[in-house]
Formats: sequence, C-alpha cells, structure tokens
Amino acid sequence: MRIALAQLNYIIGDFDLNTAKIIETIGKCIQQKADLVVFAELSVCGYPPRDFLEFDDFISKSNNAVNEIASHCIGIAAIVGAPSRNPDAKGKNLFNSAWLLADGKVQDMANKALLPTYDIFDEYRYFEPNRKFNCITYKGVKIALTICEDIWNLGDDPLYISNPMDILAAQLPDIMINIAASPFTYDQQKTRAEILRANTVQYRIPLVYVNQVGAQTELLFDGNSCVLDSEGNTVSVCKSFDEDIRIVDFNPENKKITSDIPVANEALSKTQLIHDALVMGIRDYFSKMGFSKAILGLSGGIDSAVTLALASEALGHDNVYAVLLPSEYSSGHSIDDAVALAENLGCKYDTISIKDGYNSVLGSLQPYFNNLPFNVAEENLQARIRAVLLMGLANKFGYILLNTSNKSEAAVGYGTLYGDMCGGISVLGDVYKTEVYELANYINREYEIIPLNSITKPPSAELRPGQKDSDSLPEYDILDQILYNYIELRQSPTDLVESGFDEAMVKRVLRMVNMNEWKRHQTPPILRVSPKAFGQGRRMPIVGRYLS
Amino acid sequence: MRIALAQLNYIIGDFDLNTAKIIETIGKCIQQKADLVVFAELSVCGYPPRDFLEFDDFISKSNNAVNEIASHCIGIAAIVGAPSRNPDAKGKNLFNSAWLLADGKVQDMANKALLPTYDIFDEYRYFEPNRKFNCITYKGVKIALTICEDIWNLGDDPLYISNPMDILAAQLPDIMINIAASPFTYDQQKTRAEILRANTVQYRIPLVYVNQVGAQTELLFDGNSCVLDSEGNTVSVCKSFDEDIRIVDFNPENKKITSDIPVANEALSKTQLIHDALVMGIRDYFSKMGFSKAILGLSGGIDSAVTLALASEALGHDNVYAVLLPSEYSSGHSIDDAVALAENLGCKYDTISIKDGYNSVLGSLQPYFNNLPFNVAEENLQARIRAVLLMGLANKFGYILLNTSNKSEAAVGYGTLYGDMCGGISVLGDVYKTEVYELANYINREYEIIPLNSITKPPSAELRPGQKDSDSLPEYDILDQILYNYIELRQSPTDLVESGFDEAMVKRVLRMVNMNEWKRHQTPPILRVSPKAFGQGRRMPIVGRYLS
Repeated sequence: MRIALAQLNYIIGDFDLNTAKIIETIGKCIQQKADLVVFAELSVCGYPPRDFLEFDDFISKSNNAVNEIASHCIGIAAIVGAPSRNPDAKGKNLFNSAWLLADGKVQDMANKALLPTYDIFDEYRYFEPNRKFNCITYKGVKIALTICEDIWNLGDDPLYISNPMDILAAQLPDIMINIAASPFTYDQQKTRAEILRANTVQYRIPLVYVNQVGAQTELLFDGNSCVLDSEGNTVSVCKSFDEDIRIVDFNPENKKITSDIPVANEALSKTQLIHDALVMGIRDYFSKMGFSKAILGLSGGIDSAVTLALASEALGHDNVYAVLLPSEYSSGHSIDDAVALAENLGCKYDTISIKDGYNSVLGSLQPYFNNLPFNVAEENLQARIRAVLLMGLANKFGYILLNTSNKSEAAVGYGTLYGDMCGGISVLGDVYKTEVYELANYINREYEIIPLNSITKPPSAELRPGQKDSDSLPEYDILDQILYNYIELRQSPTDLVESGFDEAMVKRVLRMVNMNEWKRHQTPPILRVSPKAFGQGRRMPIVGRYLS
Repeated sequence: MRIALAQLNYIIGDFDLNTAKIIETIGKCIQQKADLVVFAELSVCGYPPRDFLEFDDFISKSNNAVNEIASHCIGIAAIVGAPSRNPDAKGKNLFNSAWLLADGKVQDMANKALLPTYDIFDEYRYFEPNRKFNCITYKGVKIALTICEDIWNLGDDPLYISNPMDILAAQLPDIMINIAASPFTYDQQKTRAEILRANTVQYRIPLVYVNQVGAQTELLFDGNSCVLDSEGNTVSVCKSFDEDIRIVDFNPENKKITSDIPVANEALSKTQLIHDALVMGIRDYFSKMGFSKAILGLSGGIDSAVTLALASEALGHDNVYAVLLPSEYSSGHSIDDAVALAENLGCKYDTISIKDGYNSVLGSLQPYFNNLPFNVAEENLQARIRAVLLMGLANKFGYILLNTSNKSEAAVGYGTLYGDMCGGISVLGDVYKTEVYELANYINREYEIIPLNSITKPPSAELRPGQKDSDSLPEYDILDQILYNYIELRQSPTDLVESGFDEAMVKRVLRMVNMNEWKRHQTPPILRVSPKAFGQGRRMPIVGRYLS
C-alpha cells in the first residue's frame, strides 16, 4: 500500500480554501499512484477552530466539505480530520474525528479519546471523548487510526486513565496512523520524536504521523510529519515550517515500510528553531489576516532590531517600515544604531521626533499634575506618544504594527500599556531577553546585520536621563532564570531560594509577575515558541493574590 | 441538625484572608449553635483559581489552610471547598473537593464528577472527574454532598453521560448539600432556581445550596444561596450581591427543614439585576486590586454617563474623577450634558481640550501622510490622545481608568484600540446599547441623574463633523437583535435571514463581528452579565475566516 503524508497549511473556517487545497493534493497523490493520502487533525476546518465549533452552521459547512472531498476520492482513499456530530444525546454534541473517505463517500470514522485540555488546548470544551475503539480496514490493511493526544498517554504519571492504542493493539492492526495538530515549541520536536518512537517500540508496528504546518495566530505548527518503522527508525520526514507531501510504501505482509528518499538528518539548534518558527509566524499572521506590510518603532535597542530583522525576512525588506521616534532622552548612538540596521536590511525608515507631541500633551496635563515630580506618568507618556504616532501611520497606510516586547519585560510588567505594549502581534513576547541576544547573534551569523553596539550596550528604555533596565530589574541572566523556573517550571519561592537565588529578589520578581497580569491581559497575541507562553496557554487570575 | 449557610466573598489565592474569614464565620455559627456550617466551592482558595492550580506550592498552601480551618471545628462541623491531590497516578493530579471538617480534623471528602468546561469554565483543565460516589455521614445524618455542576445534568440533551445524584440517591441520603461557585448572568437566578427545584422534585429530599458572592475580575457571583424542602419550596435564601449567613433546622426523622426567617419574595427585573451586578463588579475589582479611585472620560453620551453613575454608586462620588476631553468636533450640548451629570452626582470633573495634543501629533505625522484625505487615522488619533491624557492622570494619581464601551460597539469593532477601548475594567462591555438605555432610565428612576438629553439624542462618536453612529451602523434596535442572535444564540446567517433581517445587513454585521476579534483580544476584562460575554467565555480564532 502506497501511503502519502499531506502536510498542509490551513486557514481556520475557510472551508473553500481548505477543501480546494485538500482536493488538489488528492489529485497530486493519484498521479503519484498513492492508495491512501493522510491529512492532519481537523484539517477540513483548520486547527484550532475554537468556539466556531459551537455554531451548528459551522459543523454543517464542515460536513458538506467532507462530502465534497469524499466525492474526489475515486481510485484513492483519504483520511481527513473534521468534527462530527455525536449521535448519542448524552455527552457533548461533537467528536473530534478522523474520517476515512473512499469510493466517493465516507467509509469509516475514528473519534479522538484523549482530549488535551491544558496549556493552549481546550478540546474537552467542545468534544465528547471516544469510548468505542475499532481498527479501520482499507484494501485489506488493518489500521489503528488515532488522533494526536491518543498516542501521548505514556509514562509513569499519565494524564488520562486509559490508552486507546492498548485497546486497538489487541485487534492486531498492521499499522498505526495518527493525525495530529501538534504545535511547535523549541523542545517539542525532540519530545514528539520520543513519543512516536515509544509507540512503535511498544506496539511493534509502523506509524504514519501527519501534522499540520503553519501559524494560527499565536500557535505555530512546525509540521515534521513522519513515518517510523516497527523498530522506531525514521523512514521519512516532512519539512519543518513548510508544506510538504511524502510518499511511503507499506507491505502489510511483512509490515515493512520504506521510502525512496533518504531521511535528511539536520537537527536544528534551539535558536535556529525559534528563528524559523517566528519567521513563519509573522508571515502567516500577515497573509492570513490579508495584510502585507508591517510598521514598527526602531529604538536602536536589541528587541526592535531583532524584530525588524525577522519581519524583514518574513515579509520582504520592502514590506517593513521602521520608524525612529527619538525623545530628548534618546542617546545619539541609539539613533545611529537604528539607522545602520535599517540600511543593512534595506528597509524604509523615517525619523519622527516625539518632542512636540510629548511637550504638547504634557502641557495640557501640567495644570492638573499639581507640580508633582517627574515619574512613571511622564515616562509612560513618551511611550504612548510613540504608539499614537505609529498607529496613526498604520491606520493611514494599512500597516500592522509589530510589538517588540520580549518575554522578560512582559513577565515583570516592564513596559507601557498602550505604549510599547501595542501591536497586532507580538514577535518576541515568548522569547526571554537572554534568548533575544542569541537570536541577534544567529541573525548576524554570516555578517553584521544588527549593529554590534545594539547587542553589547546595556539595555535601556531611555525614558529618563541615564536610565538602565538594571536600575529596576535584576541582571537579565539572573532574572531570566528566575522567570523560567517560575513560569515554565512552576517552582515555588522556596524551590527558587533553595536552588540559590536571593530570597528578597525572588520575592520581588514573583510579585512583579503576578501583579502585572492585568497588563498582559491587554497585550497582543504572542507567537508561542516555549512550553509556557503568555496568552491563552497561561490563564491566571487578574485579582489573585497568591505570592503577591 | 442546625445547618448554617455561609455565603462569603473570597479573594483568589489569599489564603490568609480566606482562612481568617472562614474561621471567623465558624465562630459566629458556634455562637448560633449550628451543628454544621457550609461554605462555597473552592472557598479556601477562591474561585476560579485558574492556573494557580498548576503550582504544587499553591495546593500545599491550600491543604495547610484546610487543616488550619479544621483545627477550629470543635463542637461544630464545616464543609469547605478546596482542591485535593489525586492519590491515583493515572489521570489529572487534582480533584475539586468538598471537605468535611469536624473534631479538629478532616473527616471525609466528596469530589466533583461533572467538570464544566465551556463558556467561562475550564475545570477539566485542572481536575480529574470523580468516579466513586459515597454519601457522607455526620451526627447520624446521611448527606449526599455534591459540587455545583454535579446536580445540573438534567434534561433531554445532558452534557455528561452520568448523574452523580442518581448514584448517591440509591444510598438513601437524608439531605442533599451542594457547594457551588455559580456566576451571575441576568437569567441565571431563574435557571438556577429551576435546576435546584428539579433536583428536590426528582430526589424527594431537601437541598442546601451554598454559592459564593462577589466579583472575581469579570466574573460576578450573586450569591443567592438557598435551602429548598423536599417538595421544592424555598425555605431560606441568602442576599443577592452581598455576604450573608442563614441558619436552618433539619429534622432527619421526618426530613423537614425550616427557617425562623420568612423568605422575602423580591424578584428583581433584568435591568435592576444588571445594575446591582455591575455596581458590585466595579466595587470588588477596585477593592481586590487595592485601588479606591476611578477616572473616566465623560463625553456627554450615554455610555460614559451610565458608567460614571455606576462607578459613583460603587466607589462613592468623591472617588470618581470625570474628565471632559472635547475636540473641535465636540458639540456644545455634549459638554453641557457631561457637566450636568458630574454635578448631579457630585463627582470631581475637569475639562481638558485635546486640541493641542491632537494638532501637535497630527503636525508631526503630516509630513508622512502624503496629503491623503482625513480618514479613520485622524479619527482614531483623537480617541488616542484622549486615552493618553486619561492614562497620564491615572498614572500620576493612582486612578484606574474605567472603560466605557458597550457590547454593541465591542461586537462590531466600533471603537479605537488604544483609544476609547482602553481601561482597567470594562463596565458596559457586556451590555448592548439598547440595554444601556434601560440602565440609564433605571438610574433615573427617582429623579433625573443622567441628563435626558444624553438619553434622547442620536448616538455619535463626534470624531468628525456631524458624525452619527447610524452613518456606519444599523440602528441599534436592529443591530442588537442581530448581535444577540449571533453571539448569544449562535444562529447562522440563514437563521437570521429567515427570521426577517435583511440579508446584506446580516452579512455585513456578522463580518464586522468576526473581523474585529483582533481588537477585542486587547480589550480590558469585561464585567460579565450575559450568558455569552466577550472575554474568556467566548474564544474565537483571530485569523479565522468563517463568514467573513
């Protein structure tokens, strides 16, 4: 049996586009004499469809699309992902299903049993878990067909009380097929490879794994669909961060699965993975929102420099407009560094002083400020005037404003709401400051794109004379470790102090993180590259007082 | 057996405060000779604790608090809500539990089986569903102890495949006790009363129901804890929107349950309920965030007028600062209406023209605007300069900015991001424009607080000469119906057209709703009064293309 892996980039809710894409791919696979082509989880409607699933009309449209796709399955079978209605009155109204289409119609279906409901996942919000397990058979091949999480419940502390594959394995399938929507994090490729391998080792049959690719707002899907033989060896792998189709041959007699194309063994570094993921994230956000041009404020600091370089790669240098917005506190070298970067990249840039706007608005406020001393009000005012200028240009010309805040700042609330926290999408909001430096060095790997001075100088918001980030924050190498241990690892203050961090500093940092939930609530979606990003994957109370 | 219902207002994660409050209440109930005092679901840690539950340290602190409370249960028993660790390695690590405390220690526990995971609820994100059901016994009384959703799975299309009370009822309990965290909507009190009554009718024993009260950011809990006898008659009801303790006497011999205080029968109108809920929501948001003073922009229109009146009632008129921010497009009557309202309420107000700031920032932008005509860029600029002024004052003096957008505007994106969409909390973001008028009339029920002119004049954003909302939106009475049918009822375009709305208008409105998800993503938390509010209860893709 010749099996094709179809790793495509879908648009949520765009049934016309997704259906056309799937049908076109089926046509290509027929040409390549495939017997079966496999698409990703919820490929017909795009993943994650979120609360669109609550609209009955959305489900009807999805069903219609499945039938339309089925009508093209002549001489080939396809497995697609789409919601299906639960025929039982009891329980949630939908299943998350893998549909087997052949001979022009729906032949069979497998429903997802393990519904990830943690971090960015909300599947039990919509779906009833499957409780009936049967292998499906096509052309005499018995297939254990599962969906994503269904094969992830291994290990000593399993999240679910049962394993679908244990039940299916008892039916002696020839092969496992798992359709997935498994989002990227910088360590997910390794984790995923281990889980897939563990399944083949446990069940001793080959595994065909098809993931989707592309960005869905903050969620980045890397693809990396693959085929493993019954000993856990990788037989075929699709590209990272791009659409791809691969074909393998499966012999049900001896359970051998083979590919004509050797597997390229190129393990990317963490920084390279983050870089490629962010470039895809920017590109897909713009194209799926129907925009082509970005604007951002370029300060001469490292965050906006890295953002500009990434955007320039994602959208093309002539689609990114950098605006330098100096104040009276901006240093000369900041402006020089910003100009040098824009020129290195070949991006259009302009310099618009915020002095007039700042002085004028401050003048309007002064009679009401009761001669109180310069403080955070005036600092924020500068950041907000910058945002007003950038948004004015964005509105006039149809740019999307890129947010340039990093994860360390977002964590401790070191940023101005409605100021530098503005933007349509946050590029670096899941990248700690220390990782931003690594990205900058990676971007400069062949030649100096980002001026070295932007990388080596002490970070500063330049909102008052001589200000440095380290005036009010710990050094970033320490801060980022504390943040990582608290945010990603959910360590307690006691854990942190025991591992050697200063107690007062730990208390202060954790308090800042918790106290600034209200600010993060209003930030743009953040391209997610870590296992615990701010946004829908981290849901904290705003009025909570734990540790604060 | 003398049973006390303790309806309290908790702070999420503030174990010291919650524990002290619970222990103090236990003391009061001992004085009143109660045998058992019942607190709400997750009362020890506050509901909803959200991702704090992922911190093992948070669970330890909660366990310690439960033990501390238990040590005060001498001569009285208490039922409190708190997470408990799942002793089984399989499944999620926590249960949502009701703990029976007596004789100074934990005596028994009941775990929640039905975990609401829809709208604003995320319980399966954290908890394993209970599968073992046993009544608990105290002083010879057999109690069917359940948690909130456990008794809600009635009707023809049940959300869950089993009913905990069916299993417990077979054990012949004397009484049902349900501890809850059931948030307010304007129709929830009626729905809840029906569900509680249906349980007593079905199981023929009395029901003691204890809800929490108070606001947790956007979630408003009305309380209304109550006791029903075995025929479904209400024996006792706690106050709406306030802490309360009630005591009832239960005779296990004849299953009679009685109260010394007659039940007051005061059904509030929908508008009155919304009014009272919003006042509580504002008050608790400020007090729990540790703030006392609000600022808002007062335009002379109805939205900011109603917001000011509500805030004035919630925080006290001398804690609300109204700022009039006229532009060259502001009409004279708008300023007069705003001044009249501030004076009627006795709030401090100032008038700060945005002309200087607007002209200055526009002047900085003009060289880059390429002589393009006045459009949404200049309109938004006015709204953003207003936000910069308001936030400047908020930062200087420690005010929280109140957002004054209504649900109709939020739905169609009729508002300026980083302009009038700013604020720490949105007061009217779940109140349609037509309902805002009803609130205004209710506020004026005794005498004219809000100037009639603010109520009767055609709504306008006043961002260009002669602008009216109806220039770009359908009339609000039509718009709000379309929005309600789409947002609350999840109707399809076909449903809407079939019920008589113009097809082109339906298409346009639904497109506006879907296209503006990116804007709503960055809005403040919205006080929730409807069954489908924008915010965590409505999770839509930003890049989705369904119907757009």
